[in-house]
Amino acid sequence: MYLNELWKKKEDFLGKEIVVKGWIRNHRPQKEFGFIDFSDGTCFKHLQIVYDKSNDNFLEYTKLSNGSSIEVKGTLIKSEGKGQDVELKASSIVLLGDCSEDYPLQPKKHSMEFFREIAYLRPRANTFQAVYRIRSVAAMGIHEYFQSHGYVYVHTPLFTTTDCEGENQMFKVTTLDFNKLPRTEQGDVDFSKDLFGKETFITGTGQLHGEACAMAFNKIYTFGPTFRTEKSNTKTHANEFWMIEPEMAFMDLNDLMDAEEEMLKSVVGYVLERCSDEIDFLDKFVSNGLREKLENLVKSTFVRITHHDVIDLLKKADVEWEFEPDYEGDIAKEHEKYITEYYSAPVFITNWPKDIKAWYMKLNEDGKTVAAVDLEVPGSGELMGGSQREEDFDKLMEQIKTHHVDTKEIEWYINLRRYGGCYHSGYGMGFERLIMYLTGIENIRDVILFPRTPGNCDF
Amino acid sequence: MYLNELWKKKEDFLGKEIVVKGWIRNHRPQKEFGFIDFSDGTCFKHLQIVYDKSNDNFLEYTKLSNGSSIEVKGTLIKSEGKGQDVELKASSIVLLGDCSEDYPLQPKKHSMEFFREIAYLRPRANTFQAVYRIRSVAAMGIHEYFQSHGYVYVHTPLFTTTDCEGENQMFKVTTLDFNKLPRTEQGDVDFSKDLFGKETFITGTGQLHGEACAMAFNKIYTFGPTFRTEKSNTKTHANEFWMIEPEMAFMDLNDLMDAEEEMLKSVVGYVLERCSDEIDFLDKFVSNGLREKLENLVKSTFVRITHHDVIDLLKKADVEWEFEPDYEGDIAKEHEKYITEYYSAPVFITNWPKDIKAWYMKLNEDGKTVAAVDLEVPGSGELMGGSQREEDFDKLMEQIKTHHVDTKEIEWYINLRRYGGCYHSGYGMGFERLIMYLTGIENIRDVILFPRTPGNCDF
Repeated sequence: MYLNELWKKKEDFLGKEIVVKGWIRNHRPQKEFGFIDFSDGTCFKHLQIVYDKSNDNFLEYTKLSNGSSIEVKGTLIKSEGKGQDVELKASSIVLLGDCSEDYPLQPKKHSMEFFREIAYLRPRANTFQAVYRIRSVAAMGIHEYFQSHGYVYVHTPLFTTTDCEGENQMFKVTTLDFNKLPRTEQGDVDFSKDLFGKETFITGTGQLHGEACAMAFNKIYTFGPTFRTEKSNTKTHANEFWMIEPEMAFMDLNDLMDAEEEMLKSVVGYVLERCSDEIDFLDKFVSNGLREKLENLVKSTFVRITHHDVIDLLKKADVEWEFEPDYEGDIAKEHEKYITEYYSAPVFITNWPKDIKAWYMKLNEDGKTVAAVDLEVPGSGELMGGSQREEDFDKLMEQIKTHHVDTKEIEWYINLRRYGGCYHSGYGMGFERLIMYLTGIENIRDVILFPRTPGNCDF
Repeated sequence: MYLNELWKKKEDFLGKEIVVKGWIRNHRPQKEFGFIDFSDGTCFKHLQIVYDKSNDNFLEYTKLSNGSSIEVKGTLIKSEGKGQDVELKASSIVLLGDCSEDYPLQPKKHSMEFFREIAYLRPRANTFQAVYRIRSVAAMGIHEYFQSHGYVYVHTPLFTTTDCEGENQMFKVTTLDFNKLPRTEQGDVDFSKDLFGKETFITGTGQLHGEACAMAFNKIYTFGPTFRTEKSNTKTHANEFWMIEPEMAFMDLNDLMDAEEEMLKSVVGYVLERCSDEIDFLDKFVSNGLREKLENLVKSTFVRITHHDVIDLLKKADVEWEFEPDYEGDIAKEHEKYITEYYSAPVFITNWPKDIKAWYMKLNEDGKTVAAVDLEVPGSGELMGGSQREEDFDKLMEQIKTHHVDTKEIEWYINLRRYGGCYHSGYGMGFERLIMYLTGIENIRDVILFPRTPGNCDF
């Protein structure tokens, strides 16, 4: 049986014989007894297995090594030891797969850096058992929220021939042989010989396709991998990560904030309810106060303030800023930190200067700002970014011209404004940002199973 | 309000005033009345809107064009027309977004080929409303099944430096400038200058990483996009598609078949329960007998038969085969068809000749076959492929040698057999194959929003 079932109704199994299969996390053989810290991976909580000299194979059992996989038959009994409610008194232990002596994951404290070097083994360690299970549960919480709120899950394409984001923002994809590139008469690479007959990229967003779907299904969301070529070696950037990008018809900026707030609270609540053991462990060993932080988020009312008023507030603050607050400019990390601490709640910052935001965002009536909104959360900074989209054909075309966007490949997108367009909004949430927030893990490399960052594409 | 809410409890709203926002699918203005076939995209079922001359803006309303987005206020009343249980008697209709006269999606029958040319608009058409909503619900059904059965959802990486599948099976990825490729002294492309410092590919499977995770979480599944460079222009091949790849520790070939059968029945049942309108529409207009086919699958017991016995059966059959059945060979489409019709049930074919299967599959005791299993379903052929994985270190190394697999980049994978490995199994299911089965749609290009096939990477 599986441990997640056992722990749900352990009383039912007391005194009964059960069989479990899993791994030895820590083995402490003694003269008369042996104790095995046993996990089968189906839940955070382990099971203690005890065996003693009364068993014919006692000596053999004492030699079982950490990391080995075993099948154990035994009786579930009340434990006399501290901190253990029940334990399994083994009548037989069968070794299924031995673990070599050079096993790198010994039961001691390892550094996060070392764990990254053994990324294929670290899911077995407690911290990563907690992090990746939370990642799985959070993903389900996201699907659960959107599906139960009438959103349609759409798979937008990753391959694109549109270099929408400008030179070198996207990975190039090819089936051509790098050492025998076909050339045109002009000497350029001849992409007509490539699989798609055109130069092809991996897109960094599903938003434009998402908007097309929202014009058919009203509310849609994407949830898939995303790629950026950024060469920044920071704690929050990876070249491959997952994103959620909902798009909603008939929603303005206020509706958008309502939707974001409701979704985030729902997902955090979903994880709190299902990952109590994991949260408690991380609270204790990784990020003190984690549970309180998450519980506060669910109870809080998110603040809503304009970019302009944020700058006012920052200018009035008795702080020496490294970056001077600027009505026309972006908000720096130090500003984000100040604002979320000032309110000690998540803060929606709205109506940003148009020049520092994207071309598809709706121009406000002042002609200077756009109906964009970033969500800043205490301790983690920006978690979501969204906007009302420009639904007016003429204004969109003006923005496209100003931002030098090539219209040829996105004619279909522009057409959405001619064929029954409507006011609509959308946002993006980096999934790893959310997981870092949910787990208190500070480096994005530790919430991704096999992270891809500049210079690192191992395993 | 949303139509999906309205249809759930329409009785509650009878005689009440409601406001809906959505699109005109078909407008039939008449002299005294007007009828609007209205959809807001939140469910398959439309709402009929009626207006009449008593309204001051009657003339204006009659000019509203198909495809436009509107906001309608009105009273929900019992309809006198046929086939309509309730309808909305409009007191006001506000045009939100007009639809140009060149709108390609007029309310008439379009060919599937034409729909592909307007892929960004086709989600608005009934067939695609049905198909893509089923796609979304099926995706949720898959997550629901796995999460409620103790599987952990893992995101395996797409970028890899391992060309495991041999030359030119994978897309190459780069950030280098094709027209200024850096060269080594030997004249080769110098990938040390690329973002990851190595030649990089997009992987076609998450299985190897999935196995590493199963050794930590017991049961895991992946669900993400997958890429193949195949240059085949068939109805069942695309270069970008989605896959589900579960891996389970402590499961042998029989456990694997149990797991596959349970999952598939669960997902089909989940869709049948939630997409009744969609299934009925597709049954009527796309694939007669669809509902019966799906309901039969849920009730059936899947047949389990060895490859050897299948060949026996084929040889005995009174059929002139195009491809002669062969004990050492693969099973052709015509054979698949015969077998599923012979049993009129899904069929698991087990224990395949080792030479035509992958290197990581468990060698059976006969030394000739591997513990692999393909699932063939009536009407669609192969839906899943899986196997017990070779857990024995020495046998795995032998297979690796025989198949000329480069061990350098997969040392970590091989190590899984040295560090507490165990008998384990896994399978892969192409998500689009499943959607084609669930919808009766015959071309993979029509179950993917924006399909990518050789020569086609539009939108």
